[in-house]
Amino acid sequence: METQVRQQMPSAFTQRHIGTDADAQSHMLATLGYDSVDDLVSAAMPASIHADLFRQDSGSALPPAATENEAVAELRALADRNTVKRSMIGLGYYDTFTPAVIKRNVFENPSWYTAYTPYQPEISQGRLEALINFQTMIADLTGLTTANASMLDESTAVVEGMLLALRASKSTSRRFIVDTDAFPQTHALLANRAAALGIELAQVALSEQTTAEDLGDYFGVFVQYPSASGRIWNPQVVIDLAHECTALAVVAADLLALTLLKSPGDLGADVAVGTSQRFGVPMGFGGPHAGYMAVRKGLERQLPGRLVGVSVDATGHPAYRLALQVREQHIRRDKATSNICTAQVLLAVMAGMYAVYHGPQGLAAIAEQVHERAGALVAALRAIDVDVQSDTFFDTVRVFVPSAAEVVAKAAASGFNLYQVDETTISVSVDETTTLADLSYVVGAFGGRDAFGHVDFDAVQHGLPSELGRESEFLTHPVFNTHASETSMMRYLKRLADYDYALDRGMIPLGSCTMKLNAASEMEAVSWPEFAGIHPFAPKADVEGYLHLVRQLETWLADVTGYDSVSLQPNAGSQGELAGLLAIRGYHQSNGQIDRTVCLIPSSAHGTNAASAVLAGMRVVVVACDELGNVDLADLHAKIVEHADSLAALMITYPSTHGVYEHEVATICSAVHAAGGQVYVDGANLNALLGFARYGDFGGDVSHLNLHKTFCIPHGGGGPGVGPVAAKAHLASFLPGHPLAQSDEHYLLGSGGASTTVVHAGGPVSAAPYGSPSILPISWAYVRMMGIDGLKQATGAAVLAANYVAKRLEDSYPLLYSGENGLVAHECILDLRPLTATTGVTVDDVAKRLVDYGFHSPTMSFPVAGTLMVEPTESEDLSEIDRFVDAMIAIKVEADAVAAGRWPADDNPLHNAPHTAQSVIEGEWEHPYDRATAVYPLASLVRGKYWPPVRRIDNAYGDRNLVCACPPPEAFE
Amino acid sequence: METQVRQQMPSAFTQRHIGTDADAQSHMLATLGYDSVDDLVSAAMPASIHADLFRQDSGSALPPAATENEAVAELRALADRNTVKRSMIGLGYYDTFTPAVIKRNVFENPSWYTAYTPYQPEISQGRLEALINFQTMIADLTGLTTANASMLDESTAVVEGMLLALRASKSTSRRFIVDTDAFPQTHALLANRAAALGIELAQVALSEQTTAEDLGDYFGVFVQYPSASGRIWNPQVVIDLAHECTALAVVAADLLALTLLKSPGDLGADVAVGTSQRFGVPMGFGGPHAGYMAVRKGLERQLPGRLVGVSVDATGHPAYRLALQVREQHIRRDKATSNICTAQVLLAVMAGMYAVYHGPQGLAAIAEQVHERAGALVAALRAIDVDVQSDTFFDTVRVFVPSAAEVVAKAAASGFNLYQVDETTISVSVDETTTLADLSYVVGAFGGRDAFGHVDFDAVQHGLPSELGRESEFLTHPVFNTHASETSMMRYLKRLADYDYALDRGMIPLGSCTMKLNAASEMEAVSWPEFAGIHPFAPKADVEGYLHLVRQLETWLADVTGYDSVSLQPNAGSQGELAGLLAIRGYHQSNGQIDRTVCLIPSSAHGTNAASAVLAGMRVVVVACDELGNVDLADLHAKIVEHADSLAALMITYPSTHGVYEHEVATICSAVHAAGGQVYVDGANLNALLGFARYGDFGGDVSHLNLHKTFCIPHGGGGPGVGPVAAKAHLASFLPGHPLAQSDEHYLLGSGGASTTVVHAGGPVSAAPYGSPSILPISWAYVRMMGIDGLKQATGAAVLAANYVAKRLEDSYPLLYSGENGLVAHECILDLRPLTATTGVTVDDVAKRLVDYGFHSPTMSFPVAGTLMVEPTESEDLSEIDRFVDAMIAIKVEADAVAAGRWPADDNPLHNAPHTAQSVIEGEWEHPYDRATAVYPLASLVRGKYWPPVRRIDNAYGDRNLVCACPPPEAFE
Repeated sequence: METQVRQQMPSAFTQRHIGTDADAQSHMLATLGYDSVDDLVSAAMPASIHADLFRQDSGSALPPAATENEAVAELRALADRNTVKRSMIGLGYYDTFTPAVIKRNVFENPSWYTAYTPYQPEISQGRLEALINFQTMIADLTGLTTANASMLDESTAVVEGMLLALRASKSTSRRFIVDTDAFPQTHALLANRAAALGIELAQVALSEQTTAEDLGDYFGVFVQYPSASGRIWNPQVVIDLAHECTALAVVAADLLALTLLKSPGDLGADVAVGTSQRFGVPMGFGGPHAGYMAVRKGLERQLPGRLVGVSVDATGHPAYRLALQVREQHIRRDKATSNICTAQVLLAVMAGMYAVYHGPQGLAAIAEQVHERAGALVAALRAIDVDVQSDTFFDTVRVFVPSAAEVVAKAAASGFNLYQVDETTISVSVDETTTLADLSYVVGAFGGRDAFGHVDFDAVQHGLPSELGRESEFLTHPVFNTHASETSMMRYLKRLADYDYALDRGMIPLGSCTMKLNAASEMEAVSWPEFAGIHPFAPKADVEGYLHLVRQLETWLADVTGYDSVSLQPNAGSQGELAGLLAIRGYHQSNGQIDRTVCLIPSSAHGTNAASAVLAGMRVVVVACDELGNVDLADLHAKIVEHADSLAALMITYPSTHGVYEHEVATICSAVHAAGGQVYVDGANLNALLGFARYGDFGGDVSHLNLHKTFCIPHGGGGPGVGPVAAKAHLASFLPGHPLAQSDEHYLLGSGGASTTVVHAGGPVSAAPYGSPSILPISWAYVRMMGIDGLKQATGAAVLAANYVAKRLEDSYPLLYSGENGLVAHECILDLRPLTATTGVTVDDVAKRLVDYGFHSPTMSFPVAGTLMVEPTESEDLSEIDRFVDAMIAIKVEADAVAAGRWPADDNPLHNAPHTAQSVIEGEWEHPYDRATAVYPLASLVRGKYWPPVRRIDNAYGDRNLVCACPPPEAFE
Repeated sequence: METQVRQQMPSAFTQRHIGTDADAQSHMLATLGYDSVDDLVSAAMPASIHADLFRQDSGSALPPAATENEAVAELRALADRNTVKRSMIGLGYYDTFTPAVIKRNVFENPSWYTAYTPYQPEISQGRLEALINFQTMIADLTGLTTANASMLDESTAVVEGMLLALRASKSTSRRFIVDTDAFPQTHALLANRAAALGIELAQVALSEQTTAEDLGDYFGVFVQYPSASGRIWNPQVVIDLAHECTALAVVAADLLALTLLKSPGDLGADVAVGTSQRFGVPMGFGGPHAGYMAVRKGLERQLPGRLVGVSVDATGHPAYRLALQVREQHIRRDKATSNICTAQVLLAVMAGMYAVYHGPQGLAAIAEQVHERAGALVAALRAIDVDVQSDTFFDTVRVFVPSAAEVVAKAAASGFNLYQVDETTISVSVDETTTLADLSYVVGAFGGRDAFGHVDFDAVQHGLPSELGRESEFLTHPVFNTHASETSMMRYLKRLADYDYALDRGMIPLGSCTMKLNAASEMEAVSWPEFAGIHPFAPKADVEGYLHLVRQLETWLADVTGYDSVSLQPNAGSQGELAGLLAIRGYHQSNGQIDRTVCLIPSSAHGTNAASAVLAGMRVVVVACDELGNVDLADLHAKIVEHADSLAALMITYPSTHGVYEHEVATICSAVHAAGGQVYVDGANLNALLGFARYGDFGGDVSHLNLHKTFCIPHGGGGPGVGPVAAKAHLASFLPGHPLAQSDEHYLLGSGGASTTVVHAGGPVSAAPYGSPSILPISWAYVRMMGIDGLKQATGAAVLAANYVAKRLEDSYPLLYSGENGLVAHECILDLRPLTATTGVTVDDVAKRLVDYGFHSPTMSFPVAGTLMVEPTESEDLSEIDRFVDAMIAIKVEADAVAAGRWPADDNPLHNAPHTAQSVIEGEWEHPYDRATAVYPLASLVRGKYWPPVRRIDNAYGDRNLVCACPPPEAFE
């Protein structure tokens, strides 16, 4: 009865998530000539993969769909199984106060978190400004010239620093020096990543006394500043030594400490990396937060990841956009600077705004308080004769004790987590939330009593070496010195949000990006302190709720994809790819087949595939595609024969990046298996399969999924993402592990559908054991509220919407590729090349003109130049889909008018798009179309107009004149 | 050390709350010629009231200021002292699921909650549309013609219904019939309010068998439908009887039940009232939620409170605005339809959006589930031979048991609160959150076991009388049938928010309204289930945290105002006034002085004062003001002499509604006291005093405060408000009590500053014992984070800002009133009459032109026609204040251009303001100024333009053609 009544309720989440109701779907099906969604999907999907039955006879492992309130209540119960202790563990993660104005107006505001990566800069000026604030903050604090728009985390940023040094150094050495006094997770990541690339790591205890002889031959050196132990030493000697042998110096620096300490740039470093977590971003059991990277002048073009720069728009006004994109994986593929194709935008925005709100004086005051309290701790411990090791320190001190375990246990009983370095050493880190009362408890754990009764605070020890005191200014730009009141800050955040187009305004029909609903109930738990306030290396006993949630999500994801085990560690799809390929590599090596290093990649694949393969130590061999966009079977077989002994893997995206269900995918997988290779299925397009077919069932050995696509984690304006890797049992033990993981045990689907466990014993790919766990409740809630039936309905609705769009647009824009029965999967590629040939109207023109119509552009020129790829997703309702289709048809009519000569090719609404309000208001109007045509091409726009703040942006200008920090305010006058 | 370090921190809340920093204040003081804020305030404030010393020698009772995080942590601890049981108490309050999309995008979104009452309709179209949705929903469900934009709560709505009947009935009787089977809190409110007005209440057990003889002579009758006991009977007989004797029938109806039951309108009712709480608004220990009132055709102009109607703008487009304002207290004063001058806008918006999201089918499905589960409960109880009284029911059933207390205790132990009617009767109410598992526990408390194992659900009893089944349609308008997906709903809410101007866009310099920062950290606790999920009549043991919070806030508010006891019950300033005047009335009566009924009110007073006095059974006598806006002392003395024996009270606002500190206030108070009268000080302008002076110290006996002005509760677009009443000890026992209050004890400042308690024994003025307690954490947090020093700094900053504005504008707009040394208090009145006389430019023109400049208008023509009253508050920073001043000066220059003949009087940027985007884009431009002058009068507007969605609205047209429900979509085409 319970279930029965619930299903009658219209509040069932599936009906909230899916935009088209039964009436709308009937209409759409009629347009396409099908009777039901199931019929449509059956016609589109090859019978060889389409299976309603799941491998387990008992059906799906997913529980029946919960209501929104039930799911939130279950998450509440999981949260209650976590214990939020005060963390003094440190190691790159510190508790912090998220200013409430930032939490509410950024972190919990869909205008920020539902935005897409700012590839369409004209409608992304708000978050681009926020990111350039972040870049300016990083550049200022590190004393370097150019910072990027964030990295995935500190440890991966160190790896990227190593790779940058390898590329940029003139040295032929493949040896990289790592200071022993660095964070353990960074050591582990470096080891894993270096091994795949044949880089030799040399652990050296660096100091001011290090000599050239100590170091030998190398292309780069890595120093942590302050060190992992808390010690502060001057790395200038080591940096100078590196430069003498053309090696590069990479310094991981603590941003808060840099407000008081000489910057890496001032010390001569080439590259600075680190994390901005402690700038207002909750620890979240490890993530997400924004790592950072900054480089000295001359290395800008070597920077991996996203970089925001200043350019000009069509009227010469300054405008922001992503700079230097030609160096990225989607352009340079296996020659790219990195496989990273995202950033941690939402978190970078928060960290940047933390600096905007506190300003330079405020940050320095926080740093001074942290340092003073660390000094008070040292004094109090020494006063009770505890053996404090640290003579220099910023926030972290090391202490020798007879039994570290005993002290750590005592502190835990009082509610504090310390870090046990070894049997007799403890590390304690102070952060901005630490009070003297907290320290009193901590000192109590060391046997102190009335800890501060006898401490003379005027004589408190200071731990910063005087020769390393900061002298250079930072955050002098007005933006960091204006918004000190909450009112001003709130309005600044609102103004930036108003510049941008996010899902809260309308459809973002981006092919391959699956911009679906990020439901408010999915987001709710992310803010809870029981999920947000946990250190990634907290004791296992504190994180039972998290571990249970992780286990459930692993199980569910394995179930819906047909795999046996899942790792949630990769904190981006690219890292998931890398982890999957490293698992394949590990598997071959364990079989003694160390020569299997060739990775076949179809020419249609996303560039990241190739870049990841290179980083996994593989050699990329491209397989041709036929004219329909499918893998050329003849070429595939030829390549398999050619590389028979060295075949490691095939990477294939399914449905293909062309948006169709390739008919021969099962055959392709078999061929690769027959040759001893493994099949990597890129899960980017999983939204076209869920509930109807599973990668593991038709031949996949390993896949990464994108929780920020199929599983509702919001794009956050360009990150965070989560890219779990899912594998068959034979690969499970090669999935990424982590030296500091709370649990070795991961879900493994055993024979007969039984559940057992496996140890993921591969090297780590993320700084934290579970990647970005604080956003996993989002995907957990989505699956929990949809159930397998809901997921299947969502897939059906997505496929229906894509085919409906394709059908309605077929007379205006030919469909480039289709599969069986002329159908597409969940997205469709519109071929604009004929239009461009006949009218001169380009993909860019259409994309920018869509802004005038109130839309975000579809994906431009990917995977085929001169096309637009449209993915409406299941969350859009029919009226919004029709509004989009109508806009596209109206644009086609406009293009025809250009072709007909009604408007000149270089002065028409398409060429001049997007039109700002200013452009139709100020000055004389000298165009051959009128103002209303420019900005109100449809009458309905009058009542709901989104105004882009700038006109079309000149990308080339910005790359020629690279500026990646806040321009002075006068620039905008 | 703790405090010391904290004060060094730039994150101290005071510095976030106050917009002007030390540098800015120095600059402003220099402009005014003062050395310090203290000097300025000393010069402005009469020495007779200005006192840094507080009555208690020990200083303020307020604790030292907490940081934002400390305050939130303390609220968390208070929340943890509440126990959230499943409430089945009913009595008009039901648990409900707030759709997450509404919670996040309305309730937690400053674009909604920081907006002001929509007096400037051109910049309030979003919330006006949301309110007309609410009105349409109420009118549809009640089957009546016109609903208002909400009432304060159900019980006050019943009182207003009684007063409406008194006004509208042709009967000369002052007798009002009340069905005995109504909610107890409604009985209590009716009794209290009727007594003050000499209305006789007759309690009658109404039924279908009631005859005219049973009723006698009366002007109105009140029926609860379904009844308080849960019984459903057909009130049509009673309604018909009432109409036969020209009496009006007022029906309180449950909105959810009305989706299944014949509507009051269909039954012939004249007035329907009730609450919309169960439409997605948390119970919140009693409030705030939106009550409602709807009337049949012909009674529209009798409706109290706010009414949204459709009119047209200057271009003839439909546009919303408040209708029929001439009937309100600020116009008709003691002849007004009511003293209510606000609504519960934010909550009405939420309830309306709940209906938009669920649609008619969804609401009916929820109602059916509720009813089915009530039926299941009846069946299960009968199956175990429990004596169920209810034959008819919707959601509430009554049960006879040997010992009600025993069953209630047993249920409480399982986590459920039932309502004990008497020693042997229990009432149980089902709501949309009730599950069968819940019912199983409840049945268990009655001795049942495996409650549903033996219930045949197909045979479950239905409790709705078939002749009362709903036949008429409801919510047929498209808005209730379009936004069923969360994506669509989110965008609708965003689009409406985008229409509006709220504090998140810029300054709202409304004199007398104190639109200051509503800090995010103040708002945080309001959403917590431990505050939101509590029934107002929950057992005392469940609400310890709430009671402690209430007690603390009472203490703090008494302390800062110089009073001895405070009641937080009034849920609007108007209700606080009424409660204060009723306390005075009670005091005089207790002294045997029943003839003391004259209330002196200065002519400058807000109209609500007079309206409240009438409702308290007093006679209003107006005291003249002199040309400076001060009370005319000679006239005061004359009036005191004239009414010596009948003088009840003087009501005076301080600082005056003219924005100045009247010099003679202490003298005035003494004169009233000498004549045996009491002094009521209206606390609307308390923001000019806090920390510098206290009402109780200079002669006030009783005051109401506005927590939504001085104490940071957001205006919510026109409610909620909280209007506590504070009184000296001799009045304390006459403050409002409540028959269902968990505690009789309230704070009383005893002699020598000791704290003791007092029973507030007056009648209730709100439906819930503590009014709107769920928003009290906001004010609690404000006081807690400011401390007395912070409050004083805020006052100083507010006074400084007002004087700075007055000074900078003195050459453009003369200041109408000033006090000592030519200074104003916290607001200033700009006299536009000379400008109007010389240029023809009106207050309206300036107000609407400010929209073009990106501002909300100051208060228009209050308290003096032809003026603007500006209150910048302490939260605005100098750049925003200067931006406003510069805009005002630029507008003056524009007005001068009109005077100089550069622009015609009927075609200039002021006369045509505000300009929409459409107005400068579509069609030919035929004005003597250019497009850019229209919408970008300042260059800075290009980068941050707020676009009003409509042009100037014709108020008179809408009042002549009254439409108060959603217009059809075609109207907007």
